Amino acid sequence: MKFRLLTPGPTPVPEETLLEMARPVPYHRTPEARAVLREVLEGLQYVLQTKNDVVALTSSGTGALEAALVCSVPRGAKAICAYAGRFGERWHKIWKTFGVESIPVTAPPGRAVTAAQLERALADHPDAVAVCAVHSETSTGVKHDLAAFGKLIARTPALFIVDAISSAGALELRTDDWQIDLLGTGSQKALMMPPGLAFLSVSPKAWTRIESVQAPAFYFDLKRYRAKLKDPDTPFTPAHTLLRGLQVSLKRIREKGITNIWQECSRLAAAARAAVQALGLELFADPPAEGLTSIKVPAGTDGLQLLSKLEKQHGLKLAGGQDELKGKIVRLAHMGHIDYFDVLAGIAGLELVLMELGHPIRPGSGVAAAQHSWAGC
Amino acid sequence: MKFRLLTPGPTPVPEETLLEMARPVPYHRTPEARAVLREVLEGLQYVLQTKNDVVALTSSGTGALEAALVCSVPRGAKAICAYAGRFGERWHKIWKTFGVESIPVTAPPGRAVTAAQLERALADHPDAVAVCAVHSETSTGVKHDLAAFGKLIARTPALFIVDAISSAGALELRTDDWQIDLLGTGSQKALMMPPGLAFLSVSPKAWTRIESVQAPAFYFDLKRYRAKLKDPDTPFTPAHTLLRGLQVSLKRIREKGITNIWQECSRLAAAARAAVQALGLELFADPPAEGLTSIKVPAGTDGLQLLSKLEKQHGLKLAGGQDELKGKIVRLAHMGHIDYFDVLAGIAGLELVLMELGHPIRPGSGVAAAQHSWAGC
Repeated sequence: MKFRLLTPGPTPVPEETLLEMARPVPYHRTPEARAVLREVLEGLQYVLQTKNDVVALTSSGTGALEAALVCSVPRGAKAICAYAGRFGERWHKIWKTFGVESIPVTAPPGRAVTAAQLERALADHPDAVAVCAVHSETSTGVKHDLAAFGKLIARTPALFIVDAISSAGALELRTDDWQIDLLGTGSQKALMMPPGLAFLSVSPKAWTRIESVQAPAFYFDLKRYRAKLKDPDTPFTPAHTLLRGLQVSLKRIREKGITNIWQECSRLAAAARAAVQALGLELFADPPAEGLTSIKVPAGTDGLQLLSKLEKQHGLKLAGGQDELKGKIVRLAHMGHIDYFDVLAGIAGLELVLMELGHPIRPGSGVAAAQHSWAGC
Repeated sequence: MKFRLLTPGPTPVPEETLLEMARPVPYHRTPEARAVLREVLEGLQYVLQTKNDVVALTSSGTGALEAALVCSVPRGAKAICAYAGRFGERWHKIWKTFGVESIPVTAPPGRAVTAAQLERALADHPDAVAVCAVHSETSTGVKHDLAAFGKLIARTPALFIVDAISSAGALELRTDDWQIDLLGTGSQKALMMPPGLAFLSVSPKAWTRIESVQAPAFYFDLKRYRAKLKDPDTPFTPAHTLLRGLQVSLKRIREKGITNIWQECSRLAAAARAAVQALGLELFADPPAEGLTSIKVPAGTDGLQLLSKLEKQHGLKLAGGQDELKGKIVRLAHMGHIDYFDVLAGIAGLELVLMELGHPIRPGSGVAAAQHSWAGC
């Protein structure tokens, strides 16, 4: 049976990237290795639409966010954490772990924190030295309005820190235009890579702050990464084979063009959502991020059985809900190396399994609606 | 030109491991992914000769050591750091960064800290709650006598923390017999893998300490890793393709047998050193670790030019010295997937380049001495 990975991370990796990573391992402290790193960092600046420095870390995306949060906000200071799901809540927990007074600004699962909420929080806490927000909350599929957040934060001395782990390379993301100071992402989402690498863009304003903070960090001490940026290198042994793979995937992104990718991702999202609604199912996220579609499991249907049948009978690996959303939602990714026909396969599988589970479905209504949407008619 | 990687990390990766990592990326929260992790952790217990828990981190080896040092020793406590080179000094710096009073016990480059030195330090600092030592100091090629250290430390309440980054899978290492509480290693040395993964074995005594410490750590918080060990999983997205590659490399190690590997590594070291001495060159490390041979660059020879010619003319990538040892030593690795004939190639190349640089060499004397040693005559 053919396997299709349709989870919002990891996502499928192009064959040419996989084969690049199967090449013999070179030494990593050479001009050739630095050239690979340079091209990767420049490629990431393009993806993130930023002139800011980008640093590469060998860790999951959480490592990049920990570096951003801990290196820019000292113990005892106050910061605002806007979150609406499991991943955003993690950044709040990191600040609390490191003795930062983190003010939570939250929304219920499936909804987003609004600009109005953030505006109030900023007014209530003028002494907040940073604001953290999640672009695409992978656990629910919700999108936050970073452009609006950025405008509000730029009026204050606070740094704007963003988790773009499942958004970079999928949905419109303008780091510089939106005045984002620290933006973290990971390799295994829309960047078309296996997990293992994480990245952080750092604005001049953020560097100034970071240089003034005595951070409880060593491996994640951003000053060490900055010191290696000129002829780019890394302070610790990097996952070099992954960097080389990323070089190949980034070439693909450049060839396609980042705005074209955002547009395609948006069209994929529209097609998936048209299908879901044509099937009489409900969308979970409002407003939704373009990289994934979260679907409510219909009443009377066993969500875990649905996912299991999709995988075991049809080779379609979708993600479920996490924690209190377990069994209640299904998450279908459409980013990175997942194309329209993969999404169509996901929708077709969903139709087949829902029918089998006795849910009233008109076969073909989902895929037809997706096709209508994709064809633009 | 054929390329031969002979540096003490990264080291060459077997083709079957490389190809495993080129397979399509699966989802990492599945019974199949947990089975991979379980086999990897059991394989590492075998390599490290321990019944202790082993946790896997996505980071360089430094990350594993940071986790060990920071999670087991609270800010304000006192600890002893035995070091004789760049890597050991790093662990001392980590403790200082996190507010631990780290007592340095050192030896000059090329020499090792002795058990007598450690005994004195333990007597002078009975309040030390941990001792950190490096097994094989990769920067100089020196070996520390962990068996002797372990006996001394076991008489005290201190934890014994070991950097086995370039020793695990190369030289004799008996975690349990030597009473090592926390032992960290990395993927890219004798484990025959690219960089990107790090591992830590944790004794019950260490877990008790760790549970009592409020560590300034999140990504490196070992409590989070412990909580996932039962049906083994990881608290953060792991570099799953690397774990799968390691599964293949560990199978090779099990098939060969760890004591056979130690023995072969020791024979390789003897052959390399016989060659070096037959060439009239001086060995740098005393006592030397079996995974690499450090050779003094002879007076009048440009060490950087020597390395450059080895690489550019002969495809032989050896490592030089770091920091103050730059240009002064050459490091030839013999661990992991580097076999006798690779070492012989390294020695042959060294002869050729030394001759070219005008150093008086009797051609063939090095390779003949290696051959004598290897043949056991």
